[in-house]
Amino acid sequence: MAIMEIVVIPLGTGSPSVSTYVADCVKVLKDMGLKFQVTAMGTIVEGSLDELLEAARRMHRVPFERGAPRVVTSMRIDERVDKELHIEEKVKSVVEKLNE
Amino acid sequence: MAIMEIVVIPLGTGSPSVSTYVADCVKVLKDMGLKFQVTAMGTIVEGSLDELLEAARRMHRVPFERGAPRVVTSMRIDERVDKELHIEEKVKSVVEKLNE
Amino acid sequence: MAIMEIVVIPLGTGSPSVSTYVADCVKVLKDMGLKFQVTAMGTIVEGSLDELLEAARRMHRVPFERGAPRVVTSMRIDERVDKELHIEEKVKSVVEKLNE
Amino acid sequence: MAIMEIVVIPLGTGSPSVSTYVADCVKVLKDMGLKFQVTAMGTIVEGSLDELLEAARRMHRVPFERGAPRVVTSMRIDERVDKELHIEEKVKSVVEKLNE
Repeated sequence: MAIMEIVVIPLGTGSPSVSTYVADCVKVLKDMGLKFQVTAMGTIVEGSLDELLEAARRMHRVPFERGAPRVVTSMRIDERVDKELHIEEKVKSVVEKLNE
Repeated sequence: MAIMEIVVIPLGTGSPSVSTYVADCVKVLKDMGLKFQVTAMGTIVEGSLDELLEAARRMHRVPFERGAPRVVTSMRIDERVDKELHIEEKVKSVVEKLNE
Repeated sequence: MAIMEIVVIPLGTGSPSVSTYVADCVKVLKDMGLKFQVTAMGTIVEGSLDELLEAARRMHRVPFERGAPRVVTSMRIDERVDKELHIEEKVKSVVEKLNE
Repeated sequence: MAIMEIVVIPLGTGSPSVSTYVADCVKVLKDMGLKFQVTAMGTIVEGSLDELLEAARRMHRVPFERGAPRVVTSMRIDERVDKELHIEEKVKSVVEKLNE
């Protein structure tokens, strides 16, 4: 299990707001049945490498389908072979040490 | 008010785990009294541009102080002049549209 | 035609140097026959969205094959539907304006 | 000496093109006398941590001065204490291994 953060930014839409596009992108994750968390700076998704790249492929396309002429999609994938990565556990491992 | 996501990755530490370094970096934000949220893929911080860059400067240095020979720090700063950005409101604006 | 920048960072290798891993990752692009440019901060690749995601999938795996326990891969894909994007032209469009 | 890659993206400008904004951002580096390279996916800059963060601060502001309502600036800083990092040498260390 790997974890991806993805940020889809449509350009040339004439508006500084992107939340409508982001919401439509995140609906892709709901359709794929993947576990995700919307944050203020992106969307974090759990899945296999192939599931995450397929989600990225579909999410990157969404703003084009809504008329945006340009899309910049940033992804960061974190994967370990010595243990599975899960959203809550990664946060917990930091927060616990923060409170030591 | 702007929002930054920051990810500090120490290299050459001999361990695949970075949570101890991340926790020490996040303590900088506590010391600076900035509002932040630890996520599975980074730390999100609210502040003025100058506060955010000062936080990044201090956080980038922390792993060196703990003996890491190399640090790669990624930051993304989102700022609007037509309205203030806050962590909860950015998430709310997406989640509301997600449930329409 | 879209353009991707990809950065593959192996963690827990015991060395601060990553150039050997990066070189092996870039060989994937040679094998796929994609046009690329190695920069000081990543590798820039031209291709269709599917080609770029397939390259990312293979490149992300390379450090695991060389024994790294953890890999963080960052990608940014820039795509326009109003015109094709090419590496040289994107640079030229900035440099020309820089010299105006 | 550290190395930064910086990408300044203005939103809400009504145009998918950003090269004019990018060129004005890069002029900041010329004014600061920093060594830089424009690539297809960002601008790579050499400097001390403080110089790089100051450059980022100025570059992030440029699109606002040209009327953009929103700016998303991404930065990645690579620094080592065991040796100085320079743009050409980082590329050379990968390309040499690529041709082995």
